[in-house]
Amino acid sequence: MDPEAFLDLANQVIKLKMYPYFDVAHSLLCALAVREDLGSGAQAFSRKHPLACWLSTMLVIFAGGMVANALLGEPILAPLKNTPQLLIGTVTWYLVFYTPFDVGYKVAKFLPVKIAASAMKEIYRAKKVYDGVSHAAKLYPNAYIIMVIVGTLKGNGAGFSKLIERLVRGAWTPTAMETMQPSFYTKASLVASVIFVLDKKTDLISAPHALVYFGIVIFFVYFKLSSILLGIHDPFVPFENLFCALFLGGIWDSLAKFLGKGQPKEESKDNKKTN
Amino acid sequence: MDPEAFLDLANQVIKLKMYPYFDVAHSLLCALAVREDLGSGAQAFSRKHPLACWLSTMLVIFAGGMVANALLGEPILAPLKNTPQLLIGTVTWYLVFYTPFDVGYKVAKFLPVKIAASAMKEIYRAKKVYDGVSHAAKLYPNAYIIMVIVGTLKGNGAGFSKLIERLVRGAWTPTAMETMQPSFYTKASLVASVIFVLDKKTDLISAPHALVYFGIVIFFVYFKLSSILLGIHDPFVPFENLFCALFLGGIWDSLAKFLGKGQPKEESKDNKKTN
Amino acid sequence: MDPEAFLDLANQVIKLKMYPYFDVAHSLLCALAVREDLGSGAQAFSRKHPLACWLSTMLVIFAGGMVANALLGEPILAPLKNTPQLLIGTVTWYLVFYTPFDVGYKVAKFLPVKIAASAMKEIYRAKKVYDGVSHAAKLYPNAYIIMVIVGTLKGNGAGFSKLIERLVRGAWTPTAMETMQPSFYTKASLVASVIFVLDKKTDLISAPHALVYFGIVIFFVYFKLSSILLGIHDPFVPFENLFCALFLGGIWDSLAKFLGKGQPKEESKDNKKTN
Repeated sequence: MDPEAFLDLANQVIKLKMYPYFDVAHSLLCALAVREDLGSGAQAFSRKHPLACWLSTMLVIFAGGMVANALLGEPILAPLKNTPQLLIGTVTWYLVFYTPFDVGYKVAKFLPVKIAASAMKEIYRAKKVYDGVSHAAKLYPNAYIIMVIVGTLKGNGAGFSKLIERLVRGAWTPTAMETMQPSFYTKASLVASVIFVLDKKTDLISAPHALVYFGIVIFFVYFKLSSILLGIHDPFVPFENLFCALFLGGIWDSLAKFLGKGQPKEESKDNKKTN
Repeated sequence: MDPEAFLDLANQVIKLKMYPYFDVAHSLLCALAVREDLGSGAQAFSRKHPLACWLSTMLVIFAGGMVANALLGEPILAPLKNTPQLLIGTVTWYLVFYTPFDVGYKVAKFLPVKIAASAMKEIYRAKKVYDGVSHAAKLYPNAYIIMVIVGTLKGNGAGFSKLIERLVRGAWTPTAMETMQPSFYTKASLVASVIFVLDKKTDLISAPHALVYFGIVIFFVYFKLSSILLGIHDPFVPFENLFCALFLGGIWDSLAKFLGKGQPKEESKDNKKTN
Repeated sequence: MDPEAFLDLANQVIKLKMYPYFDVAHSLLCALAVREDLGSGAQAFSRKHPLACWLSTMLVIFAGGMVANALLGEPILAPLKNTPQLLIGTVTWYLVFYTPFDVGYKVAKFLPVKIAASAMKEIYRAKKVYDGVSHAAKLYPNAYIIMVIVGTLKGNGAGFSKLIERLVRGAWTPTAMETMQPSFYTKASLVASVIFVLDKKTDLISAPHALVYFGIVIFFVYFKLSSILLGIHDPFVPFENLFCALFLGGIWDSLAKFLGKGQPKEESKDNKKTN
């Protein structure tokens, strides 16, 4: 591919308008996620508790903005002032839950529709991560960690609001905290936030900004499609294992065990029993 | 009744001062609600955990303001700066929980006292809903949904802060979310908020503002008294059922069942079992 | 001791710089607290869930600021913009959890180290209480209760964020609410906040400000050392019992029981059974 044309494409991606098509794709996948989280009782639940159903779907759709606002001292309800997005969210929610003979749900679950929506959602995610990092950088120009946190939350807000979203539906699952078993989306958003921060605040990345952004979009879309089509769920695992072995005690624990102190293993057993 | 005199009355109701009598009635009913929520162990609890008891009562009294502030990015503690109201709250809390031979509690439970306080509390509620809608309209002039949410939260804040209030007392009841089974107060506040928004933002309601406000006050007081004296708990149920049947799948589900697809019913059974 | 020299010392204490030594002592004890809260499975947990471990440690270290900010409508993440403190926190977290053969943890647990760190942490606590009261006084000059609440939260924020901190680690313990069984630190911070408010806002305390501050520092350090060395855990208990007997029903309940109404005792039994 011609590098010139590639840069042109990158510049077009960075200027892509999210409204309305990407908003629709995002809302659709959020409503689907709520419906799947409800399991086999989803339809009955949606009939008995329409308010809780609508509220929790809205919480998932606007999760990133709401969670980030909550942590930055900004109004949690502010994302709802975007009336067109709210309407799109409500319509998709209605289509997924209440269409006669469940037509809406079945169409949304149809593989080609799901793949297209997923790819669009990942482009949307990249934009949200970038917006989050930029917004935090404006508020706290020197606090790198805040930029990374806000970028990650914007990228996978639904993961972090899951407990509250389920609480709205009357279910409480404290062990499902995103921090305990971060999903691939959280890790990818974290990495993307770090790259955006490095790009913005340091000279370590010499590529033009549009290329960095485009690279992250490709990375998001590529792994999403691998996950749907090939079943690859977390390409970060080997790197994590290496990092844990080198820095978070892995090697030293093995050495300690080898030298006959054996404590870590026993503690691990205890842990399994008590949990 | 003379329409002129009626409008005069409405104008007087709209200018009614809440401090101090209405504050007293509101605080009294809030403290009673906490005591009843504690059940038969209320007195023992109040002796063992006076701090938790006081804090949860204050949370109920100031619930509307605190919940609305939390969602609007304003200081959650701000309602406590109203020192006279805080003193009234503390005194009523003390009277309900700690008077010798439980005199305070018995007086507050005495039917005529309870009826008078309840009627006053409903007038107070109408004012809070109106204040909530006006406040949100100042912040977000075009976000109707935010006005409705804030009005509803102000009107029945205690319903939405119930989980936190119980948590302060060491009890955790995730299935008691207001969103799952909205109480009559939540629904009434929602309807009142919608009417206030329509009155404020559109030309659909041609009656003078004072009459709209007075109408809502009468509606609140009337249903509260019906609920205490006649045991009518939720006049919205028939409308809800109609709406659900028409728009939220009711009719289509029946049709689908009739056509032999029968799925919704089975799912509903599963749901009952797992819950 | 010469009063002149004493006042001099007090003036020096008030100007003491917290960074970096006091920050180190505070972070060390916070990381130790997290490790002890995790119990025997701490090491296994830190290997399996490093992110949750790090996040919950940071939550404990910055608890006071974050909880106070959340309640005052300020950005919850703002305390993290203090990069040097964040680095100190991360390094102490690493030392306590991941050093080879657990050297860091063993050193931190060594009694003289622990005593020195504890004494420094109490000086830090006095400063945080004072800062909290001053900050709230700037925002709400007439709301004494808000000053006391913010001072208490700043003094023992970790107590109030414990539920969220454990939730980050996937554990949910609703009965561990600080409000149910306030720890000595909460009570001491409350008393210190009240004294600071009286000193700041009234003429009831005629001693110079430096002496008041120094007195509270001595009080904090003295009781912390008594607690570690002599096992005295709560010197407030007798005063509380007296207060409860006089004002919160104690005497009247006994009188009622004596007169044969005996209700409170039965209720107390019920309460124990249901809990």
